Amino acid sequence: MKTVTGIAPVNIAVVKYWGKRDEDLILPINDSLSCTLSTDFMCAKTTIMASPTFPTHRFWLNGKESDFNNERLNNCLTEIRKRANPKCGDLLNWKLHICSENNFPTAAGLASSAAGYAALVSTLSALYNVEGDISAIARRGSGSACRSIYGGFVRWNKGAKPGGEDSIACQIASASHWPEMRVLILVVSDDQKKYSSTSGMKQSVLTSELLKHRAEKIVPGRVDEIIKAIKLKNFEAFAKITMQDSNQFHAICLDTYPPCFYMNDVSRMIIELVHAYNDYQGATKVAYTFDAGPNACLYLLQNDVDEVASLINDIFPSNTNPKKH
Amino acid sequence: MKTVTGIAPVNIAVVKYWGKRDEDLILPINDSLSCTLSTDFMCAKTTIMASPTFPTHRFWLNGKESDFNNERLNNCLTEIRKRANPKCGDLLNWKLHICSENNFPTAAGLASSAAGYAALVSTLSALYNVEGDISAIARRGSGSACRSIYGGFVRWNKGAKPGGEDSIACQIASASHWPEMRVLILVVSDDQKKYSSTSGMKQSVLTSELLKHRAEKIVPGRVDEIIKAIKLKNFEAFAKITMQDSNQFHAICLDTYPPCFYMNDVSRMIIELVHAYNDYQGATKVAYTFDAGPNACLYLLQNDVDEVASLINDIFPSNTNPKKH
Repeated sequence: MKTVTGIAPVNIAVVKYWGKRDEDLILPINDSLSCTLSTDFMCAKTTIMASPTFPTHRFWLNGKESDFNNERLNNCLTEIRKRANPKCGDLLNWKLHICSENNFPTAAGLASSAAGYAALVSTLSALYNVEGDISAIARRGSGSACRSIYGGFVRWNKGAKPGGEDSIACQIASASHWPEMRVLILVVSDDQKKYSSTSGMKQSVLTSELLKHRAEKIVPGRVDEIIKAIKLKNFEAFAKITMQDSNQFHAICLDTYPPCFYMNDVSRMIIELVHAYNDYQGATKVAYTFDAGPNACLYLLQNDVDEVASLINDIFPSNTNPKKH
Repeated sequence: MKTVTGIAPVNIAVVKYWGKRDEDLILPINDSLSCTLSTDFMCAKTTIMASPTFPTHRFWLNGKESDFNNERLNNCLTEIRKRANPKCGDLLNWKLHICSENNFPTAAGLASSAAGYAALVSTLSALYNVEGDISAIARRGSGSACRSIYGGFVRWNKGAKPGGEDSIACQIASASHWPEMRVLILVVSDDQKKYSSTSGMKQSVLTSELLKHRAEKIVPGRVDEIIKAIKLKNFEAFAKITMQDSNQFHAICLDTYPPCFYMNDVSRMIIELVHAYNDYQGATKVAYTFDAGPNACLYLLQNDVDEVASLINDIFPSNTNPKKH
């Protein structure tokens, strides 16, 4: 019997991933860039037990047994076993019991699958002593999971090879490079979203005439610009690109037919509040970004956290306190 | 003393006008196409009195005196006087009292300025016996006013000349061509909108990287396709382009920085209801379109009006009945 436990962080994209060029290999149509959050507050945790006496593989997600016969889970397992250390020997034949948990809402547009698959793949790689970059394997579970393999600021290169070997994540800057950077997560709703990211982006690729233009003509320049902003610790530039890219991603969802809506009226109030606050301050102090759900992630610097958190609590008093990460 | 009264209809665009290439001349960056509503339910009415004894020009909007020194009003007046019948003689020097009224909410994204300026310009043209196309003059008041000069289905050609002489409206098909076509207006809110169309589209031209692509690469094909659908009375094709174009226009508003939001959660519920209804029917029976406001315009055929109106009343019972036009 061998037991390994691993955790993986959530990552919040500032240049969004939306649209695959290959559904099975999970190859994106554009590069994306994210910030990995600290695991102190939100993370996914995977525990894997391997035993020669287990009759079958089994899988529990957030305490509930789920079907092991899950294509993405099996793709990850197959890929990681190809890279397993030859010394593992018989361990490769042992059946696995895999328990995966998030300490935050699942499938509410809070990158739960990214953290979940990153935890799964890194725990599997510890089990089988896999060496080298494992982000391409995490990508087979959930595209953006590849970015949760690294801390700090992470770029997912879309890659060019048909097999996806070069569609990997790489760290642009470590978390210690910009230690003042903070994220506030405002949970507008922890309901499961109506449209999954997978089906939403598939429909966008099929129907949005604006998506191709975004992927080919707009994102490359944005990624270069935001990397420059991160390297120079230029918060204003970082914040503006972050907000523009969040808006453009939701614009693409709206240009999809039928349209997918991820933001609601509360999301929009938060956007208007952020712009009003920045106008009042005469400087871009806070940036919002929304993934495929109504919940806001606010990027800001440490010095501004108390004031912004108070303002949010004043304006949205019925919520539980915003969580700081 | 001479008194003339005229009315003009509202038009609801199915391929949207959004973005000017010339702010003063009101020249658009793309063609647009609309359906002119019957004046039986919603219209703008202008009464003009000209008298040699009036000491000054005066102007009333919806019963309230407003400043005559309004650039758009004066642009229309200047242009129409250039084209006045020479027989008008001294009438051209008489001062005017102009009363303009809408019988529906103003500036709530219900094309009030389009109908208003179309009524103004057609009444002025009656006063001064102007002959020929006056849509380019109405355009100087409010871009889409040029489309309210004609009934039925109307195309506004963006034109190419720097002076805007060819940026005019033309009728694609008369109302009698497709007599079964109906519009239901669902008034979600009759509040004045937060962002005027003028400032919203200006900001979109300045900041939306998707808008240029839409105007240059997407709209020309859509206009051709919807004209074909109208000529063939192909409701399904007409409806799909109408919905796609409404969504794309709001996508551009969202891609604007800072973003403009015109739709709200109720607007989105209407969109989802229309798609669900069409799915249930197995055919595209209803199309939504939203201008720069939260209110929905539903296009549908006469046979489906009763069922759809009942459904809307069931789902949104707190509203007054939808108005049929």
